[in-house]
Parts: sequence; structure tokens; C-alpha cells
Amino acid sequence: MKEFLSIAKNYKVIFLDSYGVVKNHKGLIPNVQGTIDELRRQGKIIRILTNDASRSAEQQAIRFENQGLKGLHSGEIITSGMMAKMFLQNKIKSGRVAYLGTKNAAQYILQADLEAVAVSDIDLENIDDISAMVFLDDEGFDWNTDINKTVNLLRKKKIPVIIANSDKLYPVARNEVSIATGGIAKLAESILGRKFIHFGKPDTQMFNYAFQNINAIGNYERSDILMVGDTLHTDILGGNKFGVSTVLVLSGNTSKRNYEVKINSSGIIPDYICSSIVD
Amino acid sequence: MKEFLSIAKNYKVIFLDSYGVVKNHKGLIPNVQGTIDELRRQGKIIRILTNDASRSAEQQAIRFENQGLKGLHSGEIITSGMMAKMFLQNKIKSGRVAYLGTKNAAQYILQADLEAVAVSDIDLENIDDISAMVFLDDEGFDWNTDINKTVNLLRKKKIPVIIANSDKLYPVARNEVSIATGGIAKLAESILGRKFIHFGKPDTQMFNYAFQNINAIGNYERSDILMVGDTLHTDILGGNKFGVSTVLVLSGNTSKRNYEVKINSSGIIPDYICSSIVD
Amino acid sequence: MKEFLSIAKNYKVIFLDSYGVVKNHKGLIPNVQGTIDELRRQGKIIRILTNDASRSAEQQAIRFENQGLKGLHSGEIITSGMMAKMFLQNKIKSGRVAYLGTKNAAQYILQADLEAVAVSDIDLENIDDISAMVFLDDEGFDWNTDINKTVNLLRKKKIPVIIANSDKLYPVARNEVSIATGGIAKLAESILGRKFIHFGKPDTQMFNYAFQNINAIGNYERSDILMVGDTLHTDILGGNKFGVSTVLVLSGNTSKRNYEVKINSSGIIPDYICSSIVD
Amino acid sequence: MKEFLSIAKNYKVIFLDSYGVVKNHKGLIPNVQGTIDELRRQGKIIRILTNDASRSAEQQAIRFENQGLKGLHSGEIITSGMMAKMFLQNKIKSGRVAYLGTKNAAQYILQADLEAVAVSDIDLENIDDISAMVFLDDEGFDWNTDINKTVNLLRKKKIPVIIANSDKLYPVARNEVSIATGGIAKLAESILGRKFIHFGKPDTQMFNYAFQNINAIGNYERSDILMVGDTLHTDILGGNKFGVSTVLVLSGNTSKRNYEVKINSSGIIPDYICSSIVD
Repeated sequence: MKEFLSIAKNYKVIFLDSYGVVKNHKGLIPNVQGTIDELRRQGKIIRILTNDASRSAEQQAIRFENQGLKGLHSGEIITSGMMAKMFLQNKIKSGRVAYLGTKNAAQYILQADLEAVAVSDIDLENIDDISAMVFLDDEGFDWNTDINKTVNLLRKKKIPVIIANSDKLYPVARNEVSIATGGIAKLAESILGRKFIHFGKPDTQMFNYAFQNINAIGNYERSDILMVGDTLHTDILGGNKFGVSTVLVLSGNTSKRNYEVKINSSGIIPDYICSSIVD
Repeated sequence: MKEFLSIAKNYKVIFLDSYGVVKNHKGLIPNVQGTIDELRRQGKIIRILTNDASRSAEQQAIRFENQGLKGLHSGEIITSGMMAKMFLQNKIKSGRVAYLGTKNAAQYILQADLEAVAVSDIDLENIDDISAMVFLDDEGFDWNTDINKTVNLLRKKKIPVIIANSDKLYPVARNEVSIATGGIAKLAESILGRKFIHFGKPDTQMFNYAFQNINAIGNYERSDILMVGDTLHTDILGGNKFGVSTVLVLSGNTSKRNYEVKINSSGIIPDYICSSIVD
Repeated sequence: MKEFLSIAKNYKVIFLDSYGVVKNHKGLIPNVQGTIDELRRQGKIIRILTNDASRSAEQQAIRFENQGLKGLHSGEIITSGMMAKMFLQNKIKSGRVAYLGTKNAAQYILQADLEAVAVSDIDLENIDDISAMVFLDDEGFDWNTDINKTVNLLRKKKIPVIIANSDKLYPVARNEVSIATGGIAKLAESILGRKFIHFGKPDTQMFNYAFQNINAIGNYERSDILMVGDTLHTDILGGNKFGVSTVLVLSGNTSKRNYEVKINSSGIIPDYICSSIVD
Repeated sequence: MKEFLSIAKNYKVIFLDSYGVVKNHKGLIPNVQGTIDELRRQGKIIRILTNDASRSAEQQAIRFENQGLKGLHSGEIITSGMMAKMFLQNKIKSGRVAYLGTKNAAQYILQADLEAVAVSDIDLENIDDISAMVFLDDEGFDWNTDINKTVNLLRKKKIPVIIANSDKLYPVARNEVSIATGGIAKLAESILGRKFIHFGKPDTQMFNYAFQNINAIGNYERSDILMVGDTLHTDILGGNKFGVSTVLVLSGNTSKRNYEVKINSSGIIPDYICSSIVD
């Protein structure tokens, strides 16, 4: 267990997960502004890598601002929704793209120059031009009707199905969780007997995107980078696979009480462990 | 492909699945009264074996009556809910039993002399006396809130969890399906990383229950029994495992178009195949 | 934690798992003869219910005798292999039945009046008359060649595939395990994308068989029966589902160190817990 | 269905899967030299992207040469073993690395400056310094003993476990397959109830590696690249996720008979389809 800044000082670039690292269900982690400011003062490059496809990078930057964290701009935020958007841009040429999620999340589809249609607005008798389906968020639709409707859509129409955030759950309070997009998608996968296309950490694509992004403004090696996360199976596994140093913080999904058991049972071993980025 | 009555005539006892065999999403299969009457005329013993835990045997008998099928009494109906009820009777001695489903389905808990509490009515701060959880039906609760609440209940309280109907989906119209209790339970199992206690076909327990039930009023061997079903993985697999003859009908989940592929890919081989019990 | 005989005295019938209860990797559990003799003296009916399909009941009785346990006869031993045999008898009318396992285990196929052929002896160009495949044991064949050959057989020939013992592993020494039949079958299921027909506890069929077997010589209710096992997911879950009382012993798969965690994480709750049947 | 060279002419870079595209179980695909020569003549950059961790890039280049394909040098071959090697280099600092596979495959461990020890040579009483485990190949060890030994090693020692090739099977003859490294690893994962660290397509890491590799010698965009593969779930899914154009060839895992069903049921849609790279 080490002090975070004593580790960070040896790296030029800091990749931070958002939820469980910078913020939690109560808002910003207390004193996080101090850590961010100190990293800036030392000239570190900062990037947020988040499996959150419910809002665009711009919206997430505004939200950080509103929650009281100053000086994080949208160009520093990389979301799994951006990976889904790139897939749509590269692979879906036309038609309407169906989605589960909020109107906010649907921005990712519009940004790919495609037409977005909420599953609730689809007429199942008129789906010839539906060209893809995206699971974006666990909110913004009625679970009672729209999960079923999605299953029926995908039984009738064989199209690429994209999960913009594979997380199965997220904490909403101390000891309380909420089923996330990846959980709902898993239900559909199980019922349809089919595997969809997953984006987000631990997939190394976001790391690669961030790596190219920082090398457009400088010259960095993998060994210059420290990935900071609270979840072994996404942040640490992804960082380890991509080949950067990793630090597990105990301020979110992994706690002081269970981190040893989780590391042992998963075999996913971070290079460092800290209480949080403010300790 | 044979005529149903020409097969049935060689057996003393006919076990019938309900949905897809006797009825479908439109109501009774046309002319099913004629087949039932003919089986009665020939002195056959009839039992309905259904993975439906949303209504008691009594309620299902009334529903058959209301839909126009005469002469089927509740003692002839065996439901997977009855298996769950027996488990509760034998294994849960006290406390409140949480459930997802309709008030109708909760009868199975009351019949086991236990207190039933809908997940929606539970206060998660007050769960010390919750002694078991039962997935009964896909209706009767709000998916937006109560599935999440169930997951949180089961994270906080380690209790036996029972799935009264393991079916993952059921047809609600030609080419349209609805996610069933077993699908919702699968979502919770996946998120909790845990396997619940499953009842209903293909588990042989319902077959055994029916076998003891008919032997209380006569003297029957397995070779006297014909199991009739529309689903390979439940009706036919269960019947084959229990050691009775099986006939697949193509009036429900399995169709003329796909039955050969399904039999080949599953290796679940019925003794006979019929269009329906009225052909 | 109670003394075993103080629990057993309230039941007329004792069902015992074999491995981990009566014997372990070193031979008989010390002093087990004393417990068996005392149960006999009190007039209890005894049945062994074992997920062991590598030997017939007769061979297992001889083995107990050779290991030093006197007075257990083959009619008291019920194996998952007997369930597989009954399935073959009822459902496979002709042809050769392929198997993985020892010649000893193949007795179950011969007892069903079918021709048995080891996978190693099959010519894959001549498989028209192969009518079923049975996974019997993890020994008796060359893993380097015969697992692959089994996968190729099942790709070419769509036949019922039976797993006579679903256990994935078994202990061979303190802290050392061996992959069991169910593990090998799981590999084949995963590669073929298909689910085979599983026998053995927790399936209630063996309990039902034993129940009918004792009722052929007396008059017993479920409430007269105590199931004794060392494994929550097979012995205790199966007993609970069948509706008999269950006692978990800590002399095999479940230990004093981990039984609380295992019960809590599985939600499979035995009625009683004992150190072993000799304490 | 189009002619391969008429597609390839629109791209500057051609990524080729090896098995099923350039070679098959009988050796080189007939006339493949002609296609490679023509691509060279047109100045295309060529890279082989293969999920083969059984040999180093150098050994694979020699093998191509020996099979009769001229002019492919080792710097053009990118293997999933190289991804595993980089992980070891970045994350395993000391100790002995256990492996399943041939001595040839173990080169990847030695190249990471680590000590390699075959599972067969490990003494399970002396494993304190074993720092990682790698599944490299399905050959080079005795399945009868070493798979079990691996399971026991991983029960005793909590270390990172790496699957250098996640493919579950590979073709060895027309209509005959062999279980691959990923299948054996799956067996161990299933028995241990744990998920290992997987490398190889569809993971986008190899694509990223190849992308950086070609940009070290030129200036290429994703839109300049065509990925050619015979397997939807690895080559095409990985290429689609990385954002390059994809062509499915029907000369390996996917055939003229089943490609439409496979594309429809998977929702993995290639940009183009060709008989082979020589048509």
C-alpha cells in the first residue's frame, strides 16, 4: 500500500478510470481536485478512460465541472461510447440504428452520421432498414416492454449488435448496486444464444486510442504510462494486457476488505495498490 | 410423422405439456376437446405437466374451462410451482419468503404455510427474517425497479433461491416471444455469479410426482406412459430421462420447418413425431 | 455441529454418498465399520448413492469388502451408471454404443443388452451403426487421442450423448484433485456448442430410484430419510430438492475451514452439519 | 462473391490470416504464390496475423519457405505468441514461467528473458518461484497427466494465467478437427471456475501491433488496410472492431455451404466475400 503521488511521479502520463477513482455515488472523491492540480503542476498528461456510454465526452466534461472538478476538458475524456461510435462509422453505412438508452447516449449514433431510433419507437413490422443495434445505457427506456422488444427485434433481423459498455453492474450507494448495460445485454445474449460485439475495458482498444491520442501531441512509450483503476477485471486487466503499469485503488469496486481475495482468485495482479488517488 | 391417436392407443397414461400442445397464444388448439374426449372414452389416464408457476393447479383448471375445454379437473394438473411449493414445505421452516411474480403465483408460498412478500414490498433495511426467494412469474412486478432490488436483496442475504419455472422464453404471438421467469433468473444468476435451485422439466421430479400420483389410484409401469410435448429440451429430454415414451408435436416451440435441425443439433430424440394432438 | 448418530437415530433410512463420506483417497474413513454396524443394529435401512459410473454396483460392493468394510451388499448400492443404463435400456434399441472409460464401466452398456465399443476401437469411416455415446470414466483411454476422436465422432454423427457422472473433479490426495468424467464431457460440450444428457446427483432421479427401491421392501415416507453427503452441489442440493433431510459431513469436498463460505455463497443449506459419520 | 485481387487493388496494406487463407491441412493453398507475387508487384504491404503460438515468427517463416512459399520474411509475421511474450516482458519480472506446449513454443518465454519450465518438469511440492502459467500449444505434453497437473498447480499457486491462442479447435483434415490450446484452457477455466487472460484475434491487440509496425515504415490509415480471414469470430470480428475493411474467404473454417447461416446467426458481417485469395 503506497501513497498515490509517490507512484505517479515516475510516469509522464496518467490514465484514470472515472467511477470509483475520481468520483463515486456521492459525487467527487473528497480532495480529488488537489491530486489533479498536483499532477498538472508536475506536467503530467491526464486522460480519463471510462466504460460510460451514457453521455458524450463533452457532456461528461460538463458534469465534472458541475460537480466541482475544475480544469478537465472534453478532449481528455475517452469513453467506451466513442469506441462504439467508431465501429458504427467504419462499418454501418446506412439505415437506422436501434438503441437502448437515453437520448443523451444516442448522440454517439448521431455523431457517426447515422439515424438513431429508440427501441420503444420501432414498429416491429417495419424493420427492413434497421442496420444495427446498440446497447448504450440501462436508463432511458421501460424495462417492462423494451427488453422484450429488443429480443424480438434481434430474432427477426440479423444485424450487428454492439454493447457500448460491458459492465454488468455499478454501485449506486454503499452496499447497493444497479444492473448496468452489460447485464441487460447478457440477458439478451443468453436468450438468443448469441454473442454480441463488446466494447470498453478490458478490451485494449480504448488504451490504444488513448495511446495514439497522446502521441499526436508528444512522444510517449508504454513505459511512460500509469493506468489507475478500481476494478481488476476491466482497468487492471486491460492495462496489464496493453502493457502499461497499473495501480489498483481501493476507493470503489475493490475494497480494503476484499482486495487480496479478489487478486488471488482472479490472478489479475496490479503493479501497485493505493487506498485512493487522494491518499 | 404419425397420427397422434394411433400412437396414444398403445399407452394407458398420457402426460401432456400444456402450452404448445393443448393451447397456444391464441387459446385452445382447435379441436383439442375431441382428442381429450376420445382419450377419455378409451379410458386413458390424463395428466397435464406444465412449467407454469404463475397460477395454481386450481386456477389453471378454471382457465381451461373458461377457454372452452371441458372436463379437465385440477387434480389432473401438475405444475412446476407445485415442486417449488414442496421444496418450501420441506426446507423452509419459518420467516417471510420473497417473490417475483403475481399475487396469484404467490399462492404456492401461502400453500406451504409460509408468509409471502413481494420484492416491491420489501424494505432492504429490514430483511433479517427473509428466509427464501422464489422466481414465480415474469409478470406482476415492475422490471425497472424490482429486478435490481432482487439482486441487492440476494447480495445482502444468503438464502435459498428457487426458480419455479426455468423456461427462458415463451411465445406470445406467431414469431413473437416474451422473456420468461427463467430468463430473468438467469440475469440475476449471471450478475451474482451464482446458480439457483431450478424446478420444472427437464428435471424428472415432475415426472416422478405424476408417476406416484397415478400409482396412488392404479398400478402403472413407465412403459404404460406416453409424454407429449412441443419442446425438446424440457418435455422430450425429461420424458426420455425418466424412461417413458415421448412424442414431439409440431404445434408449438418446434415447427415442421426446424424440427429436424433441432433434433440433430441437440441429440434429443423423441420416440414419435406428430403434427399436433389433433392430427 | 452435531454427533452423527444423534441425528441418524431419528430416521428409518440413511442414504450415504460414498466418496468423502464412507471412504476417501486413503481408503475407508477410520472407524466407519462401527457406524455402519450401529446403524444396522438400530434396524436402519442403508443405501449408498454414488456418482460413480466407473464400476457396477457388484464391483463396488466387492471393493468395499476388499477395503475392509463388511456387510454392504450390492443391492444396497445405487450408482449414476445405473441411471445411464436405464436410459440406454429405455431409449436405445439397437446399434453399437460408443464409450469413454474402462472395460469395467462398459458393463453398464452390456447390462442394457447393447453392444459396447470403446472410442479407441472405432473406425471413424464406419460409424453408421453407432447409436449413442456414453462418458463413463476418466480412465481407460488415452486422453491424447480419444478425446479428439470423440469430438470428431460427435461432429459426424448426431446421436444421444450421455454423461454417466457429471462430477467435474475428484480428490486424489490431500489438496490434490483429478479431472473427472464430467470435466472431460464439459470440454466436448464447449467445443461442440451442445449440451449432453447428464445423470447423477443433484438430479433427483437417483433419489427417486432409491425411494422406490426401499418402498418395494417396506413403507417409507420422505420424512423417514436422511441423506448424508460431503458435497453441497450434488448430495445436499439433490436431497433438498427431493425433499428428504440432509446432513453435510466435513470429511471430504467440504471442510471445517470453508463450509460456512460455501453454504453462504451457494445458498444450499443442509439441515444438519457433522464432522463425519464417525464423530 | 468477388475476385480477391479486384478487392485488394483498392488497399495499400493486406493483413492475411495464415491457416485457412494461405495454407490448410494439406499444405499451401494451390497457386497462393501467384497471389502473393501479384500483391508484391503492386507494391502492397503484407502482414500475416496468426493465432498460432506454437512457433516463433522466425520458425513460421522457415516453414512457409519449406512448404514452397517464397519471399515471406519473419518480420512480416505477427503471432498471438508475440502478444503473450510482450505481456510476460511487461508484467512478469522474475521466477519460472510454467507452460503447456512444445519446446519450440517455449521460445516466446525465453525471448521475454524468463526461465521456462514445462508443466511435466514441475515438482508440485516446489512451486514457490513459479510466477506465471502460459497455455502455448496443444502438443508437446501428455494430456493424460499434464492437464491434471496444470489444474493442481493453479489450485495451489495464484498466478497470472495466459492463453497465447484462444482458438478452441483447428481443422486437421477435411471434416476432421483437433482440439486447440483454447479448448484445453477452457477445460481448466471451467474446473477452476476462473477466467484466464486471453490473447489472439478477435482481441484487437494484434491489429494494433501490426498497425504500429507498418506505420514505423510508412504512413498508413485504417482505411488503407484490408483484413483477410476464414473465421468470422476471430479474423472478421477483430478486423471490424479495429476498423479496417474485412474480406471473408471460404477456403477454411467457413464454407460455401454454411457462410450465410454463420453470418446471419453471428451478426458478424464482412465487407466482402471471396472463394479464396487465389480466385
